[in-house]
Amino acid sequence: MFIIGELINGMYNNIGKAIKEHDKAVIQKCAQDQINAGADCLDVNCGPASKQPVSDLPWLVEVIQEVTDKPLSLDSSKPQVIEAGLKVAKNKVVINSVTADPEKLAVLVPLAKKYNTKLIGLTISAKGIPQNKDQRLELAATIVAHCADAGFPVEDLYLDPIVLPVNVAQAQMKDILESIHEFKIISDPSPKTIVGLSNVSQGTKARNLVNRIFLTMAIAQGLDAAILDPLDNDLMDALITSELILNKNIYCDSFLSAYRKK
Amino acid sequence: MFIIGELINGMYNNIGKAIKEHDKAVIQKCAQDQINAGADCLDVNCGPASKQPVSDLPWLVEVIQEVTDKPLSLDSSKPQVIEAGLKVAKNKVVINSVTADPEKLAVLVPLAKKYNTKLIGLTISAKGIPQNKDQRLELAATIVAHCADAGFPVEDLYLDPIVLPVNVAQAQMKDILESIHEFKIISDPSPKTIVGLSNVSQGTKARNLVNRIFLTMAIAQGLDAAILDPLDNDLMDALITSELILNKNIYCDSFLSAYRKK
Repeated sequence: MFIIGELINGMYNNIGKAIKEHDKAVIQKCAQDQINAGADCLDVNCGPASKQPVSDLPWLVEVIQEVTDKPLSLDSSKPQVIEAGLKVAKNKVVINSVTADPEKLAVLVPLAKKYNTKLIGLTISAKGIPQNKDQRLELAATIVAHCADAGFPVEDLYLDPIVLPVNVAQAQMKDILESIHEFKIISDPSPKTIVGLSNVSQGTKARNLVNRIFLTMAIAQGLDAAILDPLDNDLMDALITSELILNKNIYCDSFLSAYRKK
Repeated sequence: MFIIGELINGMYNNIGKAIKEHDKAVIQKCAQDQINAGADCLDVNCGPASKQPVSDLPWLVEVIQEVTDKPLSLDSSKPQVIEAGLKVAKNKVVINSVTADPEKLAVLVPLAKKYNTKLIGLTISAKGIPQNKDQRLELAATIVAHCADAGFPVEDLYLDPIVLPVNVAQAQMKDILESIHEFKIISDPSPKTIVGLSNVSQGTKARNLVNRIFLTMAIAQGLDAAILDPLDNDLMDALITSELILNKNIYCDSFLSAYRKK
């Protein structure tokens, strides 16, 4: 499982404040805490309050790169913000994200190719959020076809079925889970799959429980990556144990701590 | 999810002692505790220490029936023990279990039909435990075909892929999970699927965690029933939340307690 830590996001008060005040220590501690907890990559998002994302994102990237060489997931809906981050990135990069819209694909896929990054593709378009599995698959196929045409390696593409909150889209959860399995068979080599996890529990009263159960079910469907809170210890236990059951880590009695040390 | 409580089993010291001493109170409390925790059915197993299972099992059945009319899962590898239980059962019955061996099928399927019970079919035979998914499917198909031939309704058949401990059969776990999905498409109407859960964590150091993660992954594959410890509160939370995500119970903020009350 490729674990992307979600906590460096300006929508969180402490991070929003640190961006505003250019307080490196808060950002760097958040980076290190997530890596120590098992993150393979750090999402970097200026948040909605940032007035200058074109300068805030590069600042974040440079500050984080002072303390780690782990990959960074540059998270913005604006291609020019992502490009500003790419220009200063020395670490490996995941572009988060492109959609199935032709104008987004036309800009971001060449950027991903030029900078040799991985790319997250959201199965969403200007028409809105897909309402069923067929619509998700159609959008996924659009993204895969565009990448293949453009010569971008499909195995570096992470398709996201768009996880909706269980309390507002309960009837769609099964489709979302099954999409994870079906995305993998769109092409050979397979695209990879990813979820932005926390959205599933948005507005519920048992957020951590809902998060870890959904993640476990998604891993059972073959999920490759997730954007999540690696400081949620029970969530990480669920993730590690799910991967153990799928034989991705060798069993030992101390498999939980062994995985974290690795 | 059809939840079969596993705790009335002579292999547990308190139950073994209660059977030996004909102590009704211990058995009846164990029955009620499991039902209060959410069990839909109670497994009834005299355990390996029982010298007289042909009389011990009917005694257990009668004692339990004094306090509940929930279904009972009569659990023995000996058909004559199961028949002794059937003779006194007033509650609905699940026969636990038949294997894919012709001589077992020839006795137990007619019994299940005669007494109008459900039937658990283990995908195992005299040749031993299956080593891969194909062998599991072959044994499952043998059982389904036998039931269909004998006029036993396939939708009353619960196929068990035989869950092995993750610390000794880690490479088989994925096959076991996928078998759950594939058993459902052997015939139309579909047979049901079941696991004896606790075996997955046998000998591991994090039993409850392994149990609930495996159960969650199995539910993601379409599991219909499980034999488990309903007094494991975290396990029940995982089960309830998994079913919530599959839209089998309507979301409300107090979905955990709402399910239990139901």
